[in-house]
Amino acid sequence: MIRLLVLYHQPKDPEAFDRYYESIHIPLAKKMKGLRHWTIGKVTEVLGDNKSQFYFVADLYADSREQIDEILASPEGQAAIADVPNYATGGVLFLYTEVETVI
Amino acid sequence: MIRLLVLYHQPKDPEAFDRYYESIHIPLAKKMKGLRHWTIGKVTEVLGDNKSQFYFVADLYADSREQIDEILASPEGQAAIADVPNYATGGVLFLYTEVETVI
Repeated sequence: MIRLLVLYHQPKDPEAFDRYYESIHIPLAKKMKGLRHWTIGKVTEVLGDNKSQFYFVADLYADSREQIDEILASPEGQAAIADVPNYATGGVLFLYTEVETVI
Repeated sequence: MIRLLVLYHQPKDPEAFDRYYESIHIPLAKKMKGLRHWTIGKVTEVLGDNKSQFYFVADLYADSREQIDEILASPEGQAAIADVPNYATGGVLFLYTEVETVI
C-alpha cells in the first residue's frame, strides 16, 4: 500500500482553514475515485528536532503509486489539487510513503 | 482515534538505519501493549514548500492520547523510546494527530 501524506503548515487563519476544508475541499476531493482510505486530523502536538508548525494532516491511501498518480491526474484529482492553495495559506508538504503493517 | 506520526529525517547511513530498525527496534517496540495499529514505510518522494529530507515514517494508532501516553510510559514504551537515538542519526519529528475517517 502507498500513502500520500499531506502535512499542512500552520495557516494564517486557522478558523478559515477549518471552514474551507470542511465545506469546500472535502466535498470536492470526495469526487476522486479509487482511493482505498482517506483520513484527516488536526496536529495536537509536535515534539522533536525540528518543531515545524504543522497544523493539519491528511492521509490518502491507494494500492500503488501508479494508482495515486492516476487518481490525481483525473479531472476530479486535478480539481482537488487546484483547490489546495485556496486554503493552505501556510504552505503544505506532500510525502509519498510506503505503508507496511507491523501490528 | 489518535496517531503518533514519527517522521525520521534522512539518517547518516540509511542501510544501517534499515538493518537496526528491522532487527532491533521492531522486536523491541513490538513488546509495547495497547496499540491499535502500527504501520511503517519508507518515504519515496517529497513535494512542496519545505522539502525536508524525510526518510522513513512510522504511524502508531491508539484510541486516545491518554492511551498513547500510557503505552509510552510503560517499561516497554520507555525501552522503545530510549532505543530511537541508536538509529535515528538524522533526527526525528513526532507529531500527535487526530485521525478521522473521510472515506
